[in-house]
Amino acid sequence: MSEATLQPGTLYLVPTPLDFGIASLDPAPLDQLLPGDTVATASRLTHWITENAKSTRAFLKRVDQISPLAAPIQAQQITELARATHKKGDHRPDAQTDAAARALLQPALDGHDIGLVSEAGMPAIADPGSSVVRTAHAMAVPVTPLAGPVSLMLALAASGMNGQSFAFVGYVPQEPAERAKRLHELERLATQSGQTQILIETPYRNTALLEALVKTLHPDTRLAICCGLSLPGQVCRSGTVRQWRAPAFQAKALPLALPSVFLIGR
Amino acid sequence: MSEATLQPGTLYLVPTPLDFGIASLDPAPLDQLLPGDTVATASRLTHWITENAKSTRAFLKRVDQISPLAAPIQAQQITELARATHKKGDHRPDAQTDAAARALLQPALDGHDIGLVSEAGMPAIADPGSSVVRTAHAMAVPVTPLAGPVSLMLALAASGMNGQSFAFVGYVPQEPAERAKRLHELERLATQSGQTQILIETPYRNTALLEALVKTLHPDTRLAICCGLSLPGQVCRSGTVRQWRAPAFQAKALPLALPSVFLIGR
Repeated sequence: MSEATLQPGTLYLVPTPLDFGIASLDPAPLDQLLPGDTVATASRLTHWITENAKSTRAFLKRVDQISPLAAPIQAQQITELARATHKKGDHRPDAQTDAAARALLQPALDGHDIGLVSEAGMPAIADPGSSVVRTAHAMAVPVTPLAGPVSLMLALAASGMNGQSFAFVGYVPQEPAERAKRLHELERLATQSGQTQILIETPYRNTALLEALVKTLHPDTRLAICCGLSLPGQVCRSGTVRQWRAPAFQAKALPLALPSVFLIGR
Repeated sequence: MSEATLQPGTLYLVPTPLDFGIASLDPAPLDQLLPGDTVATASRLTHWITENAKSTRAFLKRVDQISPLAAPIQAQQITELARATHKKGDHRPDAQTDAAARALLQPALDGHDIGLVSEAGMPAIADPGSSVVRTAHAMAVPVTPLAGPVSLMLALAASGMNGQSFAFVGYVPQEPAERAKRLHELERLATQSGQTQILIETPYRNTALLEALVKTLHPDTRLAICCGLSLPGQVCRSGTVRQWRAPAFQAKALPLALPSVFLIGR
């Protein structure tokens, strides 16, 4: 078969469990956390594009325990996304990012299937990777997403808030006055249009964000937080800000050191 | 143990596969499509709140093939959400909806775990169920979401669009002038703020919506559609509207009869 007619490989978007970096946890067998199709597909791939090669090798060890890998880990091609690119987010099309993505996707033009992974959850959602997916489409490389946990959606369902209209807005500013302004803006969107607003924070700042939310928002606004989604000990709490301000509600300790998702609604 | 000190049961949010209602498909074994934890938890529940009892019984038959049910299906309590309630969406708090949800959740106060399910995907996301979750929180019934496929997130990851900021907006109007107005509004949001806009349509109107999108949006706007997510034959296509207008791009047939997700971005 000449190169011109070679079928390109497929870019698989491979979700990983949400237990990344939780030192206290013995990792559960992967087939408890991911669908069998996802694990089986991951086990037959030999080319990877990743946020972090070390965490991908750890993931592949867990895959191998359920479904034997097509090639030993040290024989697999595991290439990291440029750190400079993904730190600022790789979702804005620009020439340098696109050129980097083209180089990463070259194995697909040679007929190899490629897996795209992040450290936890679905790649390219609240995580880097979208430049690679966008470029795959531009190169006519087929893109196939595989099912797995998405913390934002677990939190949304568990919040009891509007799941017919919602937005993920990422991080809010850390500076108190700017943060309060942004939270009021999100509160207006949530209460006036009914669009649930979903936000995240770096775990060590979760307590500060929760305090700011409880202090800043209107008593009638609904606030939810889900900590440690899909992990043993996960907690989802949802109520009005008035309820959140009551000592009895607050007193039930939340595992705020775990990755958490915050939601504002009505 | 007296009733006052009885621990309430947990409300589990149980995702189902995305192959519901696809007559042409032989259903795949459930452990290929859902994580083992989700199937194992579903198998030990005996009380269900559902969008549709018939589809829940079919789901439980598939669960039983992987993990034996704790009780025969005919001995399980499977209660439907009020149809009048969920047709108009059950996410707005109102006295009648909340009273209905309280009645549905009574078994949890009696100590039973309860599963909440919709026909396909995650309950309470683009599907009814949020009134039950909201009321569970009000009744201090613990809420635990289980991982499974969410078509909106599979489509978002596969679109190559911004996954750091996005909104799900549901359906757009069918009337052509109103629809064009709404699509322009969503396009402004997507291109000016960079917030990816995600929409859905009833499958038999997918072709009309795709035509409207290709005709209405600016040539530089990015448009993606994913059809039949997680199913054999799924297709995700993403490109600028200029590309979508080229006959070669359009000519590659899309399985538009399958459930589809549309995305507008930049």
